[in-house]
Amino acid sequence: MSEIVTAGILVIGDEILSGRTKDKNIGYIAEYLTNIGIDLREVRVVADDEADIVAALNALRSRYTYVFTTGGIGPTHDDITADSVAKAFGVGIDHHPEVVARFRERYAPGDLNEARLRMARIPDGASLIQSATILAPGFVIGNVIVMAGVPSIMQAMLDIVAPQLNSGPRMLSEQVRANAREGDVGTPLRAIQARHPDTIIGSYPFLDENGQPNTSLVVRSRDPEKLHAALAEVEAMLADFHKPAV
Amino acid sequence: MSEIVTAGILVIGDEILSGRTKDKNIGYIAEYLTNIGIDLREVRVVADDEADIVAALNALRSRYTYVFTTGGIGPTHDDITADSVAKAFGVGIDHHPEVVARFRERYAPGDLNEARLRMARIPDGASLIQSATILAPGFVIGNVIVMAGVPSIMQAMLDIVAPQLNSGPRMLSEQVRANAREGDVGTPLRAIQARHPDTIIGSYPFLDENGQPNTSLVVRSRDPEKLHAALAEVEAMLADFHKPAV
Repeated sequence: MSEIVTAGILVIGDEILSGRTKDKNIGYIAEYLTNIGIDLREVRVVADDEADIVAALNALRSRYTYVFTTGGIGPTHDDITADSVAKAFGVGIDHHPEVVARFRERYAPGDLNEARLRMARIPDGASLIQSATILAPGFVIGNVIVMAGVPSIMQAMLDIVAPQLNSGPRMLSEQVRANAREGDVGTPLRAIQARHPDTIIGSYPFLDENGQPNTSLVVRSRDPEKLHAALAEVEAMLADFHKPAV
Repeated sequence: MSEIVTAGILVIGDEILSGRTKDKNIGYIAEYLTNIGIDLREVRVVADDEADIVAALNALRSRYTYVFTTGGIGPTHDDITADSVAKAFGVGIDHHPEVVARFRERYAPGDLNEARLRMARIPDGASLIQSATILAPGFVIGNVIVMAGVPSIMQAMLDIVAPQLNSGPRMLSEQVRANAREGDVGTPLRAIQARHPDTIIGSYPFLDENGQPNTSLVVRSRDPEKLHAALAEVEAMLADFHKPAV
């Protein structure tokens, strides 16, 4: 079995921490990575502060196969991601000639001002994430993938970069509706988890369509046989729980 | 001026990292804390893994005035937050007599099983976050506030604990619609930010009702006079930008 590939996400932006903007990228990237066989292990959200960005990025990039960042690559003074990434890697940063050339094609001469040229600042050695529809590019440096914060642009960037990523055996997942309260099944479920250490069994309470407390049980494993062995025990446990009293 | 009060959030749960559940608590807590004069500085999301929870909690609680955790206080084997918090603080954990007594009132005798009793495990020295409608309590230990992951229950817990928290001078915020693309105003905006170091000026692009790129400019400060001085310059800059050519 090939190696497990891991990831962290670093969300950069005062607007997320103030609550002004509600993040939509974490959940999207999480689901995307699960689907392509990359294990998301940790997420951090930090402010538009160089020291905070550098510290979080260095912690995450030393720990996980990949780090995905979102936010802070626009044209204004609070967009400091590219400079912070360069600092974290200890490399220089300058206007990237290919991006500047593209900007000269796309912007009217009076519009290509100092602010917009900031979006062409790319750390030395990074490769661009760009397409015909993406104006300000993202970039990849080392194991760090730097993307926009606007969800539609971030999603386009993720589609571009994903085929270049290593991925491992995909985490498989099966879900069962318990038709029971979480506390009704917690004790036998713990025993099943103990017997199946190569699976991860999760229990998630929800209110069902009748307004009753109900529970989703999720069994995950990279090995389909182990997953189905645990799942069969979960289903047998539920059948036993729901068996009419004699 | 009283001291600035800071916070971190620690979201605990495999289901957030797998993308199965989309977090709704970060944005809610962020907005809530801003409104009561507490500065959210950092968010981390970690898996249901004791070592990861302990490490993240210790990092955050040493750095910020308060840490709010969500998730992992239910009745199943994957609910390990209370035990992990006890470990982070180096204190014992046991069934809390007050919670057990409450459970004995609420549950039918056959329903008060080992799994449900797990929800009565509270670290030594913690105080409970509870109400008539909250079954499994949250708790406060040191500067750490431990809450449920289910949004409606988390919100009820936050309402209970908020009046007990210290808060600082509230961060005030004013927003202006630029009717301009972000890159059009980035250069003068940077100059305004440089002249008003006690404010934080943010620039957030959006597509407006005509499908055109537009920008929200947000000026924040704890000092209303400083805020309005910077805001006046932002408005004058926009008026100048929109002035018809002679």
